[in-house]
Amino acid sequence: MDHRARQLRLRASLSKHHLDALLVTQRPNVRYLCGFTGSAGALVVTSKQTVFFSDGRYTEQAQSEVKNAKIVIGRMSPSMAAAQWIRSKQLRPAIKALGIEAEHLTLAERKNLANVLPAQVRLRLVSPIIERLRMIKDASELDKLRDAVQLGATLFDVALKTIRPGAKEVEVAAEMEYAGRRHGAEAMSFETIIAAGRRSALPHGRATATPIPDRGFVVCDFGVILAGYCSDMTRTVFVGKPSDRDRDVYSAVQEAQQAAVDAVRAGVTAGEVDAAARNILKKRKLAKFFTHSTGHGVGLEIHEAPRIASGQTEPLTAGMVITIEPGAYIPEFGGVRIEDMVAVTEAGCEVLTPTSKELIVI
Amino acid sequence: MDHRARQLRLRASLSKHHLDALLVTQRPNVRYLCGFTGSAGALVVTSKQTVFFSDGRYTEQAQSEVKNAKIVIGRMSPSMAAAQWIRSKQLRPAIKALGIEAEHLTLAERKNLANVLPAQVRLRLVSPIIERLRMIKDASELDKLRDAVQLGATLFDVALKTIRPGAKEVEVAAEMEYAGRRHGAEAMSFETIIAAGRRSALPHGRATATPIPDRGFVVCDFGVILAGYCSDMTRTVFVGKPSDRDRDVYSAVQEAQQAAVDAVRAGVTAGEVDAAARNILKKRKLAKFFTHSTGHGVGLEIHEAPRIASGQTEPLTAGMVITIEPGAYIPEFGGVRIEDMVAVTEAGCEVLTPTSKELIVI
Repeated sequence: MDHRARQLRLRASLSKHHLDALLVTQRPNVRYLCGFTGSAGALVVTSKQTVFFSDGRYTEQAQSEVKNAKIVIGRMSPSMAAAQWIRSKQLRPAIKALGIEAEHLTLAERKNLANVLPAQVRLRLVSPIIERLRMIKDASELDKLRDAVQLGATLFDVALKTIRPGAKEVEVAAEMEYAGRRHGAEAMSFETIIAAGRRSALPHGRATATPIPDRGFVVCDFGVILAGYCSDMTRTVFVGKPSDRDRDVYSAVQEAQQAAVDAVRAGVTAGEVDAAARNILKKRKLAKFFTHSTGHGVGLEIHEAPRIASGQTEPLTAGMVITIEPGAYIPEFGGVRIEDMVAVTEAGCEVLTPTSKELIVI
Repeated sequence: MDHRARQLRLRASLSKHHLDALLVTQRPNVRYLCGFTGSAGALVVTSKQTVFFSDGRYTEQAQSEVKNAKIVIGRMSPSMAAAQWIRSKQLRPAIKALGIEAEHLTLAERKNLANVLPAQVRLRLVSPIIERLRMIKDASELDKLRDAVQLGATLFDVALKTIRPGAKEVEVAAEMEYAGRRHGAEAMSFETIIAAGRRSALPHGRATATPIPDRGFVVCDFGVILAGYCSDMTRTVFVGKPSDRDRDVYSAVQEAQQAAVDAVRAGVTAGEVDAAARNILKKRKLAKFFTHSTGHGVGLEIHEAPRIASGQTEPLTAGMVITIEPGAYIPEFGGVRIEDMVAVTEAGCEVLTPTSKELIVI
């Protein structure tokens, strides 16, 4: 893992943002830059150095995990320890403009920092610069994402063995999560969605104690965290005998999903990929049932930049890893969603999810 | 569940804080006040009414879950929908001082709100008022916490069946989590800690692929979320034959834990409960190995007010539910922690955790 290169890229952007230093407090951003996986950590990145702050619970863990940064163990919260450190040091060059992460720091944290920092330090709200670096995955991140996706995909086989009329949605989820954990997953990357029958029309139908009915779609949306990186996939199966209408809705979503995957390529905008899926569903008279966006970036967090949504002008870049997950949710009838993770390349994309998208009837 | 009473208590405190209304954005606070369990929700509580905001994904769920509040479904984030709503209404009395949650709202969210709200609305940073209400559990919350603690305790039996030399820590965690999920847990309330042998000296030793050694302590710290409420307990077992020193350290922590439980009573300060545990460990020459505080509140969140820590002057009040969890962590040797959840009463406390604290040797 190339934490040094990541820090150098961030350092290079400090002057562009007119900053003498950046205080990094968001947990995935801290992990990305220095490798620390604990719950309490902060970084100060200046033009010359990177300093990591934590508390006494993490002395040992910081020593073994933190890369390319001086380690300071304080007696207070990491961000306050950072403020104390800035106050106590005669840094050359002095820190006058200190960037803080506007999307993550709370109003109370800012107030506490301002009370401790010396008067000449100005706090500057910074938009997500590290998140923009994190959009483009490096080689070690791509490897980890591939591993997470492979493990995640094996849970679908567990779902197929467990889904049957009368089984509770949450039982299916429990079997999948157990298998993931047994094979090394640190956790699920979000609350497992098993939404059966009419519940399949809820885009966010997390598994409940509801029994799977005799007939209908079952949307399975799930992912694991492996070595810190998230997987995310959705497959929709049918229990019982599907009607022509059922097959038609499924094939429309399948076609839309494939069209969006085919549209992915470096230089294409996120909005164009979204439009590729939406246009198919429009032709198939299902556009109004596609009520969310087509996808999102995935990495250390389950939802990262970029958003793959209508009107987004962000151009895709080689190394981005995104989901492609159109769906159609028809109230009283049911819903279908199909989702892969793909890595953007110059020529198109590498589909990371290995699982067939043909309709499986149980 | 008495959402109306909770809202009335909050409303009564608005004028004390010189507020015309409060914008509530923290997810557990929103759930506490109106019952909504989804990921995107906000409330505006005025002297006269409560209004709930969410987005199109949650239309159906809001209808079925939200109690005692008017529901507004917007096209943007819930807090921005709230700001739009305030701008578009001629509210009587007008909102001039709008409280925002300083501990939860980010700098970017505040900026976005300020851009939308009418000029006459002043944003006022508010300290955790809802969190202070949440410290005192009502009857329905106590019932839910009892249920969560009971379910959580059954996972310790699973641990006892799984812990043996050579088993991986994460396998023990996987079996426990699976059993929890099968019996209705929505999730674990935090990353399961199984820390065996020398790893037991790490207070935050989440389960790893490390095999359990032939001899040593195994700290098991875990909890479930059931109907939204968290459980939290720790037991430490010994694998192999314990030495006199092992037994001595265990009995010291056990005695300290019992002393702190015995000290709990309405009117006693949180600091006095902490001191009760710490004094025993001082007598037993282990005080320097007790490197964290004695406990914390538990409810919709795993860590809530009050903190049971050295010097805390907060008086305990009947209805608070807290953990009592002293420990001793001796580098190179190992560690012991014992933790119960207790509900504070006028005369003392109700120990919610039903599990024996005698040393179990495996």
